[in-house]
Amino acid sequence: MHKKLFIPGPVSVKPDVLEKMATPMIGHRSKDASALQRRISDKLRKLFYTEEEILLSTTSGSGLMEGAIRSCTAKRAAVFSVGAFGKRWYEMAVSNNVPADLFEVEWGQATTPEMVEEALSTGKYDLVTITHNETSTGVMNPIEEISKVIKKYPDVVWCVDAVSSAGGSKIEVDKLGIDICITSTQKALGLPPGLAICTFSKKAVERAKQVPHRGYYLDLLSLYDYIQKKDYQYPSTPSLSHMFALDYQLDKIFEEGLDNRFARHIEMAEYVRAWAKKHFALFADERYLSNTLTTISNTRNIDIAELNKELGKRGFQISNGYGKMKDKTFRIAHMADYTLDDVKEVLGHIEDILKL
Amino acid sequence: MHKKLFIPGPVSVKPDVLEKMATPMIGHRSKDASALQRRISDKLRKLFYTEEEILLSTTSGSGLMEGAIRSCTAKRAAVFSVGAFGKRWYEMAVSNNVPADLFEVEWGQATTPEMVEEALSTGKYDLVTITHNETSTGVMNPIEEISKVIKKYPDVVWCVDAVSSAGGSKIEVDKLGIDICITSTQKALGLPPGLAICTFSKKAVERAKQVPHRGYYLDLLSLYDYIQKKDYQYPSTPSLSHMFALDYQLDKIFEEGLDNRFARHIEMAEYVRAWAKKHFALFADERYLSNTLTTISNTRNIDIAELNKELGKRGFQISNGYGKMKDKTFRIAHMADYTLDDVKEVLGHIEDILKL
Repeated sequence: MHKKLFIPGPVSVKPDVLEKMATPMIGHRSKDASALQRRISDKLRKLFYTEEEILLSTTSGSGLMEGAIRSCTAKRAAVFSVGAFGKRWYEMAVSNNVPADLFEVEWGQATTPEMVEEALSTGKYDLVTITHNETSTGVMNPIEEISKVIKKYPDVVWCVDAVSSAGGSKIEVDKLGIDICITSTQKALGLPPGLAICTFSKKAVERAKQVPHRGYYLDLLSLYDYIQKKDYQYPSTPSLSHMFALDYQLDKIFEEGLDNRFARHIEMAEYVRAWAKKHFALFADERYLSNTLTTISNTRNIDIAELNKELGKRGFQISNGYGKMKDKTFRIAHMADYTLDDVKEVLGHIEDILKL
Repeated sequence: MHKKLFIPGPVSVKPDVLEKMATPMIGHRSKDASALQRRISDKLRKLFYTEEEILLSTTSGSGLMEGAIRSCTAKRAAVFSVGAFGKRWYEMAVSNNVPADLFEVEWGQATTPEMVEEALSTGKYDLVTITHNETSTGVMNPIEEISKVIKKYPDVVWCVDAVSSAGGSKIEVDKLGIDICITSTQKALGLPPGLAICTFSKKAVERAKQVPHRGYYLDLLSLYDYIQKKDYQYPSTPSLSHMFALDYQLDKIFEEGLDNRFARHIEMAEYVRAWAKKHFALFADERYLSNTLTTISNTRNIDIAELNKELGKRGFQISNGYGKMKDKTFRIAHMADYTLDDVKEVLGHIEDILKL
């Protein structure tokens, strides 16, 4: 039985979008495939407010995160982590023998511009990774303020994990000076998992040229070079099903209007936050709350697994806390194509089950 | 307009299988996801005649090929190539700084047991890659004979690229002693592209443990360890849409019966070969012809692009030659769910267009 998913990905996908996943196959070396992938890239440029190149990768977001840090670190990477997915970037560096240092904060806190300034002022780093929206804690980092610091260091390639925010929260890539902004389909874009997306700046292109041994499948420079030469075709057979669905869904996103979409996400987020404060407490520092998911402290010490089981019987699913926070927090995602009514519906069921 | 595809992947997918790509989402950390992925692995073990582990990767086949050679070469890899995809494995080694030597033959020829024996007898290599079915030339390598050689070297991890043959040609993984047998969904399995599959032997597991810096997303050992600990869930969000469709399609494959399926592929192959010999000539050495696609020498010097254009108007598509063979050969794939009637249909149109 399918449930309405309020987990931070995969999200529930609209039936008409799902249907596009069943589009009959075309040759991936055909003009139709070129046109499809070129069209998607054009639309994604609009979504990311960028004039730089777009890369599509048949992987999860992790594939492109690894590709970014491996392909574009020539000297040393500064990895800023505010939770599990920030730390994952550091593990990727270590497992690829890429020199990197990890800068962590307590879970629930944000990466501050001061921390970034302190690290970069040492002159040791030529790549920075920042998590825009940390799925484990519900923190949204202040990338506008961080941008001002990073812009002072023109040799730094800036990578942003926007996996759980892009499409639900405004990220003006060129204005902020982000070199590689990464997302994937199964979060705020409202599609099934299986395709990752990133922006790729000219600075990132030049940097990658200086890096030996970037690997093959996740080498961002080889993807970039290939699509230039082969009119937006990719070196390996991509997931065309996701391409068909993404092409369609991007039209729907622009039909709603980007500003309307972002405002809808804020509206849902504010409602969930108010509800959380009324009945529980917010886990993340209130200055840095995510627009796409809310992590709620389990102040009533409820049995979260049991709550989810009861919600399941009613056709809904939320998330327990991530990793070490499994029972201490629970998470409600409010992203992609849900509206305030959907959020009210699931919260109503929680109130009913917990007799709040 | 969708065409009937006789290209070596993506193949045309049956409407009921395509429909499964539109299955509503479930959480990838749910019991349902575990059960789905465990069930698929069990079915794939049957398809590969193996009792070893199965790994699923949200990538094309290239992702797992790279993962195999990088994760499991501790000393030096011997890469045997009979065409473009064999050579790709060498490029993967080089781009990952994995020590490797390339053993090539002229296009159209096969890797012989003698070549493998000569290389392995030097004692330099602890990993061998063999292309089972070379999509660029239509050669199917004699893996039964090669198996006898490799078995004499118990320290060698044997990787087989069965991307364009598995599911269409019998590969008894355990009997042959293959450690990592790789395929992907968009070829003889009859599904859309976007998911790769491999077998992973205990010997491969032990080898990978000795290899530092295996990377993250394509590290086969970390996939293996994760699914053991987390009941067949994967470290990153996988393409669940492909899982739903694969689960369904594998049932259909067993319904047909593996032996029937393989016999049907041979029947189609023999028909295309006879037709090719009557009107053109076979490109590959006749001792090593592929069961899933036939590469035909363009002895009449026809305009292949023009032929495909005319076929396109009638709703069909074949492939030109690969890379440097673009105009000198053309390729007709006969794999997945097509029958002899489909093959006769497309060949009939070719005869009609070319006035043969």
